[in-house]
Amino acid sequence: MKNQINGSGSKLKIIALGGLEQIGMNITAFEYEDSIIIVDCGIAFPEDDMLGIDLCIPDVTYLKENLDKVKGFLITHGHEDHIGALPYVLKEVNAPIYATKLTIGLIDHKLEEHGLIKNVKRKVVHHSQSINLGKFRIEFIKTNHSIADASALAIYSPAGIVVHTGDFKVDYTPVFGDAIDLQRLGEIGKKGVLALMCDSTNAEREGFTKSEKTIGAVFDTLFETHKKGRIIIATFASNVDRVQQIINTAFKYDRKVIVEGRSMVNIINTAQELGYIKVPENTLIDIDRMKDYPDEKVVLVTTGSQGESMAALSRMAMNMHKKVTIKPNDTIIFSSTPIPGNEKSVSRIINELESKGADVIFQEAHVSGHACREEIKLIYSLVKPRYSIPVHGEFRHRHAQAMIAKELGYDNDHILMIHTGDVLEISEEEGAKVTGHVHTGSVFVDGLGVGDVGNVVLRDRQHLAEDGIVIIVLTLEKGTGQVLAGPDIISRGFVYVRESDALLEDSTEVLEEAMDYLTEKGISDWGKIKSTLKDSLSDYLWKKTKRRPMILPIIMEV
Amino acid sequence: MKNQINGSGSKLKIIALGGLEQIGMNITAFEYEDSIIIVDCGIAFPEDDMLGIDLCIPDVTYLKENLDKVKGFLITHGHEDHIGALPYVLKEVNAPIYATKLTIGLIDHKLEEHGLIKNVKRKVVHHSQSINLGKFRIEFIKTNHSIADASALAIYSPAGIVVHTGDFKVDYTPVFGDAIDLQRLGEIGKKGVLALMCDSTNAEREGFTKSEKTIGAVFDTLFETHKKGRIIIATFASNVDRVQQIINTAFKYDRKVIVEGRSMVNIINTAQELGYIKVPENTLIDIDRMKDYPDEKVVLVTTGSQGESMAALSRMAMNMHKKVTIKPNDTIIFSSTPIPGNEKSVSRIINELESKGADVIFQEAHVSGHACREEIKLIYSLVKPRYSIPVHGEFRHRHAQAMIAKELGYDNDHILMIHTGDVLEISEEEGAKVTGHVHTGSVFVDGLGVGDVGNVVLRDRQHLAEDGIVIIVLTLEKGTGQVLAGPDIISRGFVYVRESDALLEDSTEVLEEAMDYLTEKGISDWGKIKSTLKDSLSDYLWKKTKRRPMILPIIMEV
Repeated sequence: MKNQINGSGSKLKIIALGGLEQIGMNITAFEYEDSIIIVDCGIAFPEDDMLGIDLCIPDVTYLKENLDKVKGFLITHGHEDHIGALPYVLKEVNAPIYATKLTIGLIDHKLEEHGLIKNVKRKVVHHSQSINLGKFRIEFIKTNHSIADASALAIYSPAGIVVHTGDFKVDYTPVFGDAIDLQRLGEIGKKGVLALMCDSTNAEREGFTKSEKTIGAVFDTLFETHKKGRIIIATFASNVDRVQQIINTAFKYDRKVIVEGRSMVNIINTAQELGYIKVPENTLIDIDRMKDYPDEKVVLVTTGSQGESMAALSRMAMNMHKKVTIKPNDTIIFSSTPIPGNEKSVSRIINELESKGADVIFQEAHVSGHACREEIKLIYSLVKPRYSIPVHGEFRHRHAQAMIAKELGYDNDHILMIHTGDVLEISEEEGAKVTGHVHTGSVFVDGLGVGDVGNVVLRDRQHLAEDGIVIIVLTLEKGTGQVLAGPDIISRGFVYVRESDALLEDSTEVLEEAMDYLTEKGISDWGKIKSTLKDSLSDYLWKKTKRRPMILPIIMEV
Repeated sequence: MKNQINGSGSKLKIIALGGLEQIGMNITAFEYEDSIIIVDCGIAFPEDDMLGIDLCIPDVTYLKENLDKVKGFLITHGHEDHIGALPYVLKEVNAPIYATKLTIGLIDHKLEEHGLIKNVKRKVVHHSQSINLGKFRIEFIKTNHSIADASALAIYSPAGIVVHTGDFKVDYTPVFGDAIDLQRLGEIGKKGVLALMCDSTNAEREGFTKSEKTIGAVFDTLFETHKKGRIIIATFASNVDRVQQIINTAFKYDRKVIVEGRSMVNIINTAQELGYIKVPENTLIDIDRMKDYPDEKVVLVTTGSQGESMAALSRMAMNMHKKVTIKPNDTIIFSSTPIPGNEKSVSRIINELESKGADVIFQEAHVSGHACREEIKLIYSLVKPRYSIPVHGEFRHRHAQAMIAKELGYDNDHILMIHTGDVLEISEEEGAKVTGHVHTGSVFVDGLGVGDVGNVVLRDRQHLAEDGIVIIVLTLEKGTGQVLAGPDIISRGFVYVRESDALLEDSTEVLEEAMDYLTEKGISDWGKIKSTLKDSLSDYLWKKTKRRPMILPIIMEV
């Protein structure tokens, strides 16, 4: 009999707290009776219309309301979309964190920055090790990804086993450590798995993702064919194995390596301290020593592979970097691929670099960290879950995984496309069903503010961004309501004022007429005065300019 | 002898008025003694940081200053980035327009919308025909592109011949009309060509671009395999040949065709009137008649293939279209590829469509309208210009064409990478050199306003978008300068006020302290008062929130 699970009859709840509608903010809660465990706790980067927002963190109202049940956070790997929200969430939901060594190292760095390191328990877990949290037992299983020490989780509950892959690929020849533990996934599959929550990122792509190791050979070739001049390589700060391969090739070709960009320096330091990267002596040098070596003896590894405007590579491209100036003999290798939405920024940087005479090598030296279709099929075939719950990806990617599951023989009742906020109840006997919804969503972080910018403020920012603001000020006499000063008009972000003096003059006239009308009618209610002024100016400006600036009437009384 | 040209000794000036740094705004002037001709006159769509801007048109100060020399506009084809700015530019530089029939048809439509049709001369030119304008003779040469009736131009001047390809591809089996006139390009090449200005869009891509006709077969296959349910195809409004092929396949599979989206309806109407599209009787139906046919008998051709938020497909995807609701049995074909920068918007639409159960087919039914590397080499080999001037594309694309030219044996002195504003002087005897610069740039169009939004207004909009605005109002007594009312604080787009009452209260206190200080010091200068209030509030808010809203102090006097 396939998939037999020793169920107690009680149900396991899987609560999607984030990461489905808004990509990045990965966080899922598992609840069984008095126990809640949380898998991952990531941030999302703001969408284009979230003006001024720095980042988004998940709304964890549900966890705050069930604080006594929360047993801990289980983190699959150290990427921002899986750990970034921890410092914010821990302030409200303080519970121990469990993860592998490098992941904990990166989290520790984050907690230190936020002054939280002393208040939060962290525990390093080894692959193949299990921990008990309330009614749950969680086993960490080795996987491969674009950051070392990634884990899948087998979550054992009295209702059955859920396997959560985290972000993964199948790499038979990883740069560091072992290949994904396919044996153990098969063994757990044999026991009977209730549900599989599998990474969908590359579910639209055919075949297998190439091994990280193949990039080493690419670097060798590129270094061989670019022996003259400096080499600058932009890659993801967290891809420690990639940096390891750059160091290996640099050593082989007798170049010194400089690491530039705050986040990359942090991660490489952490990785070195914890033994995740091996640097031959005298290979890594400080950026200030770069000038002591000829160009053909250095390679600079830098952040900014996504065209981020404040990252080191962008600053170099724009001639704004204090220590690196792009020269005609530079070779710049993008060891990355643009994340959707960043294509144009990356292209802008390439234009700048090439216009300075540099040779840019794009999309030759990168492999993905996520499983393609055949790898996903492999995981299904090992784990053989009763239910498929595609996670991690936009709807189209999760949908593509659902189609793979269908191909493998799963029917619609056994493929669960859940949404953020859904509470999925699942058990061996009664099946799986979304039985409720919890309050979720994004909380915006802007400067020091967490949650003080909401949709009203964002709508105002969008309005201001579109057509600017026109302010009407007016001083009235207390008692009589007589106009003592104004109405005056001040605008910002609307039109260039010197060009449009006539427009503002006519606008003042429109307002004066409106005031005359109000006086005539004996209207002294401030609300009514404000709305009349606003409406008449708005109509006038629309007629004249086909624009709708925000109009803000302010009345003072003396 | 190669490339001998009968030069008079006088120089030809090629003036890059747009389209190089800001993609889209294609416009180039050619000047010889008392004659100026202008090739193309396009708009650019605003960059992400140009908040609220509808479109950008070229700054034609140089043409206005040399109005008496301007002989006419020569338009290579009817795309917006080549014709879109005509209605704006013609208001200041009224000169006759020369183009092929469909191109003039599309321009006419535009001029009618702007009420200019009676004031501007237009002349239809046939391929192979030449026209004389001052010291220039211009020959229109048949090319292929993603819109019918595209032309390359051979510009004959006493200083030599310049060949401008316009946007082109080599299509040996076009859907409508003839293949590109390679013979004539060869013949002109034999005469000796001074310079080639060639489309760079696909210069990074290997090989040849496929024929438009191959898409017909793709549609046939897709219609064959999707016989159940409705088919919706999103494509570029101006790709008349694409729509022709959809109509052909629809007719074959006995489906009625509905065209939806304002710009597509306009272009298809124009193309039909002018004979550029052949519609079998009773095949095109109005959208209101769609309900009279079963789903499997209709195909809807729509705008919105770039995820544009107001286009028909987006409105369908978001459930905001009045007449079309997406259903689980719909098949939606994107017959397009996302233009760089639109990837995320397109992905958002795909997510929405798939979440409504529709089957989305993406990037299977499209070919580019631009020449790839081998086609560019072909044109160089026919035209054999003395100088290469790569145009049409970002720097990286023009650079890639420069690399092709190098491969073909051109040295750096004969490859000219020009920038917007450059004046390139070129003659057989003295060679080619950038000898000057003219005032150019983008003029922003926002609503009815042209040029009244400049960089100051944009910076204000960016500032407002980032952190909103905080307004300080204050009424002072005339003469004494005593505070009669305020300082009051009003904010928009800053933070959610109810949450931050304390912040605003404390801010008021900060301002009151500042006013006390000013009174104490006997300062009554408004400029000083404003800057003191602004600075103290700004410092306070930065300390408390790490944000810098725009702060606008307003003083009234009674």
